[in-house]
Amino acid sequence: MTPYAAPVRDVRFVLEEMLEHGSLALPGFEEASPDLVEAVLEEAARLAGEVWAPLNASGDRQGCRLHDGQVRVPDGFIEAYRAYAEGGWNGIGVSESLGGQGLPEVVASAVQEMLHGANMALGLCPMLTAGAIEALAHHGSEAQQAIYLPKLVEGTWTGTMNLTEPQAGSDLSKVRTRAVPCPDEEGDHYRLFGQKIYITWGEHDAAENIIHLVLARKPDAPEGNKGISLFLVPKFLVNADGSLGERNDVTCASIEHKLGIHGSPTCTLSFGEGAGAIGYRVGEEGRGLNHMFTMMNEARHKVGIQGIGVAERACQHAFAYALDRVQGRSPRSGHSDCTISDHLDVRRMLLSMRARTDALRALALFCAAQLDQARHAADEGERAAAQARVDVLIPVVKSFSTDQAVEIASLGIQVHGGMGFIEETGAAQLLRDARIAPIYEGTNGIQALDLAGRKLQRDGGAALEGLIGEVEATAQALEAQGELADLGKSLAGGAADLRAAMAAVLEAGADPEQGADAVQAYATPFLSLAGHVLCAWQMGEAALKASAAMAAGSDDPFYRAKQQSADYAIRQWLPVGRAQRAVIEAGMASLAAFDASAH
Amino acid sequence: MTPYAAPVRDVRFVLEEMLEHGSLALPGFEEASPDLVEAVLEEAARLAGEVWAPLNASGDRQGCRLHDGQVRVPDGFIEAYRAYAEGGWNGIGVSESLGGQGLPEVVASAVQEMLHGANMALGLCPMLTAGAIEALAHHGSEAQQAIYLPKLVEGTWTGTMNLTEPQAGSDLSKVRTRAVPCPDEEGDHYRLFGQKIYITWGEHDAAENIIHLVLARKPDAPEGNKGISLFLVPKFLVNADGSLGERNDVTCASIEHKLGIHGSPTCTLSFGEGAGAIGYRVGEEGRGLNHMFTMMNEARHKVGIQGIGVAERACQHAFAYALDRVQGRSPRSGHSDCTISDHLDVRRMLLSMRARTDALRALALFCAAQLDQARHAADEGERAAAQARVDVLIPVVKSFSTDQAVEIASLGIQVHGGMGFIEETGAAQLLRDARIAPIYEGTNGIQALDLAGRKLQRDGGAALEGLIGEVEATAQALEAQGELADLGKSLAGGAADLRAAMAAVLEAGADPEQGADAVQAYATPFLSLAGHVLCAWQMGEAALKASAAMAAGSDDPFYRAKQQSADYAIRQWLPVGRAQRAVIEAGMASLAAFDASAH
Repeated sequence: MTPYAAPVRDVRFVLEEMLEHGSLALPGFEEASPDLVEAVLEEAARLAGEVWAPLNASGDRQGCRLHDGQVRVPDGFIEAYRAYAEGGWNGIGVSESLGGQGLPEVVASAVQEMLHGANMALGLCPMLTAGAIEALAHHGSEAQQAIYLPKLVEGTWTGTMNLTEPQAGSDLSKVRTRAVPCPDEEGDHYRLFGQKIYITWGEHDAAENIIHLVLARKPDAPEGNKGISLFLVPKFLVNADGSLGERNDVTCASIEHKLGIHGSPTCTLSFGEGAGAIGYRVGEEGRGLNHMFTMMNEARHKVGIQGIGVAERACQHAFAYALDRVQGRSPRSGHSDCTISDHLDVRRMLLSMRARTDALRALALFCAAQLDQARHAADEGERAAAQARVDVLIPVVKSFSTDQAVEIASLGIQVHGGMGFIEETGAAQLLRDARIAPIYEGTNGIQALDLAGRKLQRDGGAALEGLIGEVEATAQALEAQGELADLGKSLAGGAADLRAAMAAVLEAGADPEQGADAVQAYATPFLSLAGHVLCAWQMGEAALKASAAMAAGSDDPFYRAKQQSADYAIRQWLPVGRAQRAVIEAGMASLAAFDASAH
Repeated sequence: MTPYAAPVRDVRFVLEEMLEHGSLALPGFEEASPDLVEAVLEEAARLAGEVWAPLNASGDRQGCRLHDGQVRVPDGFIEAYRAYAEGGWNGIGVSESLGGQGLPEVVASAVQEMLHGANMALGLCPMLTAGAIEALAHHGSEAQQAIYLPKLVEGTWTGTMNLTEPQAGSDLSKVRTRAVPCPDEEGDHYRLFGQKIYITWGEHDAAENIIHLVLARKPDAPEGNKGISLFLVPKFLVNADGSLGERNDVTCASIEHKLGIHGSPTCTLSFGEGAGAIGYRVGEEGRGLNHMFTMMNEARHKVGIQGIGVAERACQHAFAYALDRVQGRSPRSGHSDCTISDHLDVRRMLLSMRARTDALRALALFCAAQLDQARHAADEGERAAAQARVDVLIPVVKSFSTDQAVEIASLGIQVHGGMGFIEETGAAQLLRDARIAPIYEGTNGIQALDLAGRKLQRDGGAALEGLIGEVEATAQALEAQGELADLGKSLAGGAADLRAAMAAVLEAGADPEQGADAVQAYATPFLSLAGHVLCAWQMGEAALKASAAMAAGSDDPFYRAKQQSADYAIRQWLPVGRAQRAVIEAGMASLAAFDASAH
């Protein structure tokens, strides 16, 4: 596998030139200077490239092993995780009051991309811990926070999310795991009984303890969502002095044999095979799903980031191969024995991979910057406006980045020709790994429903309309620049398509005859259109910044490359997305009438 | 893995109702009645479903093993292959004069789809043998035909294609394997020295002998294509009486560890580690590449068929899961605990898979029917016209079917949610298997160059223009039918887009400034556009036939399902393809200026 070089320059272009380090100007980030951010990125790149990336292929080959209920992760993973935790990386996005470094989300997101690009399977471990930290920080009692947060933030312990059960996947209202309150004299805890599946890093040997956050219901709880509460179930019980006590009654029954992310143990956990797993309720009774969704929104952003990390690695892999592999004659120079990067059809694949990865990254970091605004802006109105954008952007970042990552990884295989199909090359692993991201943390179909259904319908499209206005402003700025005028025109067309499609989806949603049903039929095409337009918008911004830098005298080839990337994204990629307007406007009558059993 | 039921009804719809059994009316097929074809399809479906399909997952898990130069294929494969050979299936498309059954290519193609859908890894073995039969039938001497063809046609021996070497992949002019003529007194053979890679079923234990067809060059041959000749190298030498003699000096050095088709051994073969592998020249000296291309065109059609087989199986898998998996509440009925096939976003995925698979099958079988015409039509002009269409259609069938198969298999995973990522489910294998098809037998990029470069430029687009005319005729017929008028309009729009894009590609090709270079930049978008329009055309035809059947009083739900499929293909799928016109018209200046090393 080609060595991985974290894309520091590309990330800095987005943070410094596109976002102009806006997050650093927010209250609470006074100590985070551009220099500090640069140093953090450089150091993260070193960890990712030198420590995590070399274990990606070996971890895939070796996978995880379950023996006597104990999971062993691949060789080297424990040390690589420790290097990460000891370097303080687990807390970089966590606020200082909780023991973290309190850096902005844009910076934390950039670092996450590097780690996932280096080793997605290992990256999942801290990703899940971050969810547990978030849940406890928002909903845990003071005592719970005091006991569990410091260890989770420093990464000595890791966290998990226990949601899915065999009958409860996308529909969590069907959760059956029982949490039985203990008699008063025994304490304030519960005993949990049930089985959870697909638990990422649910059991492993890389940390001293594992803190499971578990959805379960009390025996007398009502059916449906309102009966579900959130519980904390440690692998090892924690004594009053913070030391580890007894092993809790939670065991790993099996680990899954998966298409990819072999280095990440996906566990079936059994709670209460004996006297019951001791658990503590987190937050309010009956509000477990709500509490879980607090953190799930951010977890979805992180999954989008994960897709981008893998896409970046696929790019690097494909570029390195194409620049090295000699085959055929260049049709331009007539040169025989050119590298395949000389063939325009190969260039098309490379540029398509690069342009999309650039665009997805810019959009995801824009969304992260809005998260920073939503949390830290001094003005309440600004915070609310940023949050409204975040709400619209997160399903797009999650779905669109991950769907595209699968396509980019698949194109990466194609660039390699026959070599791409051979596992040793490493390109195939990236497709295998990427393929989970459109599924977990809410399938991409669920994301599309969240966007076209909940998010769009509840504010009548106001937040997205605001973003479309910004797309149009960028289009106008491009049109005002001689050589970028064509891009501006295309982008304006994309904005118009998105507005028209939004109107159609809102109209369908408002129609009591069709309602939720029609919205569901249009949801995925609509999300795809939104993703293409918003990504093209970001690349329009990138083109403007690159153009300004060159006009100011820079001859850094980076800017020219970024302009080519923008050119491809807007001319060759956006039109494919714009076609989704026609898909939506053609109507979806065939879906309502569709009878799967007749096909 | 869900049992596989070969799509007999769908195939019969195409052969009987869409193609009206046109091939059976050709000279040479007098004995092939519709009843016979029906019986053949039913029997093939039985073999595919009962004998081959059950070994698909186990073959994937077990893979092939190399020990002491001997490859063992997965358990059960030898018996399944024998059942196939003993049933006479290997010769169904081979002419009776060569010992085959001489059925039309449309029928043989339909059977191939069933076998690949059942077990693509095993299906590759006879697919390669068919190539060897083709090569010998066209270019072998009478003596060679007498010795090798009967055994290959009956399937007692299998065949391989030895083209690729480490430095010679898409560019076969770089082949270095040497064929040294033996001194006169020794005989008319050669001794071959060299290494070939990616040899499908290059070594195995399922047949008594393996006949390798090998591209090599004589020591005094000129460089480049013209120095390459084709040689026949048997694994075991064949005595004058037809019995097997000594082991030849060709050995399997290694087998590849691949993303998919684990049951198909992909071998590195070493020729001449000792005294040299004895080989016999096939056809003319220096014409090896030409001879190879004779059969490669048909092999490409077969790879397209293979994609369709896997796509069909992915459909069946996804439909079965979606009709069984209970999750969530139906937004229409408000019914809680519906199957996921009730959710419109899931229906969208299912119908997208089904519509595309139907369309790809119809186009591939249309192409096969043209192959029958090209070979058997009484009139020379008709034969030539059919061949011109075949030339245009084959790159489309190969690339478009295989690219789509990858997407369909990936959608199949998505329909399964978390289960899709678990290998035991079987959906992931279909993606892993399908992923090779866009690569081998000429990458899909090479196919696109063949279409937009060679095929289109040499006749000025005449053959494709003829097909576009037929698309328009279908569009008019749809427009004349009240309820199908909208489909006709969309289809006519697609035809117009394809014509405009063709004009742009022809213009670029005629421009001495741009020439081959520009054509290469547009090739893949152009092929994608052509694939979408031609597939939509076929579904327009399907809608007309289904409509006619219903108008004639049929209440078979099959016809209604086929109309839904056509409706989706034309309304929701075609627009995405039509966007490629905008991609082409936006120009590809960024590709010419692109410098991969700067990205």
